[in-house]
Amino acid sequence: MITRITILGATGSVGRSTADLLAEHRDRFRVSAVVGGSDAVALADVARRLDAEFAAVADERAGRALSEALAGTGIACGAGRSAVCDAVDRETDVVVAAIVGTAGLEPTHGAIRPGRSIALANKESLVCAGAAFMRDARAAGVPVLPLDSEHNALLQALGTAATSDVERMILTASGGPFRTWTIEEIARATPEQALAHPTWSMGAKITIDSASLMNKGLELIEAHHLFGIEAERLDVLVHPQSIVHGLVAFRDGAVSAGLAIPDMRVPIAHCLGTGQRLTTTARRLDLAAIGTLTFEAPDLARFPALKAARQALAAGGAMPTVLNAANEIAVEAFLARRLGFAQIAALVEETCARFAGRGTGAPASVHDALAIDHEARRTATEILSSGRRAAS
Amino acid sequence: MITRITILGATGSVGRSTADLLAEHRDRFRVSAVVGGSDAVALADVARRLDAEFAAVADERAGRALSEALAGTGIACGAGRSAVCDAVDRETDVVVAAIVGTAGLEPTHGAIRPGRSIALANKESLVCAGAAFMRDARAAGVPVLPLDSEHNALLQALGTAATSDVERMILTASGGPFRTWTIEEIARATPEQALAHPTWSMGAKITIDSASLMNKGLELIEAHHLFGIEAERLDVLVHPQSIVHGLVAFRDGAVSAGLAIPDMRVPIAHCLGTGQRLTTTARRLDLAAIGTLTFEAPDLARFPALKAARQALAAGGAMPTVLNAANEIAVEAFLARRLGFAQIAALVEETCARFAGRGTGAPASVHDALAIDHEARRTATEILSSGRRAAS
Repeated sequence: MITRITILGATGSVGRSTADLLAEHRDRFRVSAVVGGSDAVALADVARRLDAEFAAVADERAGRALSEALAGTGIACGAGRSAVCDAVDRETDVVVAAIVGTAGLEPTHGAIRPGRSIALANKESLVCAGAAFMRDARAAGVPVLPLDSEHNALLQALGTAATSDVERMILTASGGPFRTWTIEEIARATPEQALAHPTWSMGAKITIDSASLMNKGLELIEAHHLFGIEAERLDVLVHPQSIVHGLVAFRDGAVSAGLAIPDMRVPIAHCLGTGQRLTTTARRLDLAAIGTLTFEAPDLARFPALKAARQALAAGGAMPTVLNAANEIAVEAFLARRLGFAQIAALVEETCARFAGRGTGAPASVHDALAIDHEARRTATEILSSGRRAAS
Repeated sequence: MITRITILGATGSVGRSTADLLAEHRDRFRVSAVVGGSDAVALADVARRLDAEFAAVADERAGRALSEALAGTGIACGAGRSAVCDAVDRETDVVVAAIVGTAGLEPTHGAIRPGRSIALANKESLVCAGAAFMRDARAAGVPVLPLDSEHNALLQALGTAATSDVERMILTASGGPFRTWTIEEIARATPEQALAHPTWSMGAKITIDSASLMNKGLELIEAHHLFGIEAERLDVLVHPQSIVHGLVAFRDGAVSAGLAIPDMRVPIAHCLGTGQRLTTTARRLDLAAIGTLTFEAPDLARFPALKAARQALAAGGAMPTVLNAANEIAVEAFLARRLGFAQIAALVEETCARFAGRGTGAPASVHDALAIDHEARRTATEILSSGRRAAS
């Protein structure tokens, strides 16, 4: 049986790993559409390599370059918002939703159609609009399969068990480059130091989030929505080797864990290999060669961003959306050297505090989420400009 | 819904753990029958505690003591072979098959009835007669759920995946008390030293088997039959902390693992808690508190019993039955100080070598298996008495 695939964010890191995998399994997949942001040349490459039916680039100005690059291939293409919508609307079985950031909210939500599966890499769909997103997916009978290593490990560890049998779901964190640093050293960290992630090679934003552990906090929020597990049953464990990605502890004392060498192709293959798993060329796990796995509790004093995320999850309502928006502004400012590393969490906390009294409910739609996101970014930017940043 | 349970081997270690668990979940279970070997007082205690309908003691001479101990309770009882058969024949949903040794072969096989589940702790059913046992269980539509920590972990890690998706199944071994000993030190090991198991508290025979790693070899043979996985895809990993009990590696590079604090109640609860898991009071796994998990490849030069077991599994036919019988004789002789520790594997190898040329097929029935077992014990005893033991 041939599975039809649509890739949103085909030129990003997850999109490229997906393309690598699909190229090795041409007999099982047909690519309905590939969607990219602005890099027409890279998108045309992917489209040709996968023999896609349609390619859409979001940036209207890149349309001409795309159609030139695809001339003579027979691959239809388009540019701009309506072309992206056309791509999303095409008949398909699985949508790989790998557009990064809030830009991915609308197209990812637009992919919810009865009968499709969503292989989800866009974090914002769950962090900013999780309740609405999962509500709509459930209503449409759409399975949401996490492409993220940690959540995919949790999905595999959970198996067919009922969440009522789950005592605890644990996401692991590598601990990032500052795992063993003192609170003073962390406060003085430069962007270069924060970007030196020990185990995963990722984009700048997520690498900074890994250094602050905010990434793990956002993943807690994602897990909450994906699995319908409340904050009290969600936990984080620091595991520097990044081999065990997630653990599910059951009420009988048994714990199931998902392990793998850090390689995005592993969770992608799991999401796409429903029915029969896909063989990958990912390096195989050899625990005897690795020898030692270590685990430690996260230190919330040194990594206050994780604490802020836990608080936002516990507070509920619009708070996770606000947290995420403020963090984006803070990380941007840190990378631009306008903010110290310790001030990232401080700015997030201050922004959340400003919203705390308002009692804004959880966004009822992607539209709502984008409005809250916008408002929170404005507030965070204001705090940043005014220089009245709370001490960490 | 009430599940009816029959416990074969109710006074042994697994039987008692099962009783502990059932006593905590009286609302979900009714005990159809309990069967013991010869300890009438202990059996009567279990029967009363669980309010069993029927109790049978295998040793005819213990019949009177049993009926006296159960006088006035309304619990019916009997003694001897026919009473055990009566117990096995009673209507039930799950049979906990926990009789130790070849004595468990016939009653365990007798428990195969359409609609029942077998929670299997009797190793010999799979090691000595695995092909026949699983063939009959499949024909009767009987699920065989492993009660052993390692196999239960593998069952949970496998989940609903097809074995064709499995690249490797790995059982862990604590490594026993001689894990770090030199080959010369191991050769001089006393029964007292071999009985000092670092992580599990078990009977003498299985503790010696853990020290020689023969236990892990026998478990490979069990896994082969339970999961229908050939020897080439089965592996052993030494893991001194005994936290990770089994791992399943899939063709996509993902690995699922089953973990728990070493406590028999955990796998027993899993086998009995189909539909909804049973809450246990087993200590919960806290990886941050444990801190470090280590893994190493087993050293077949220092632990030749594991090598002998792998060879017997690869050879197939009657060889695993022969291996097991010879090992029983060897361990008995070691505990009686008539054999050095290094000679355990040597006696097993020599016995297997004597059978190697005969081409005896896999036992087609429990009866066949018992005949091969008998013949192999005779041969091993002969080799032992003649003193012509192969050097290790």
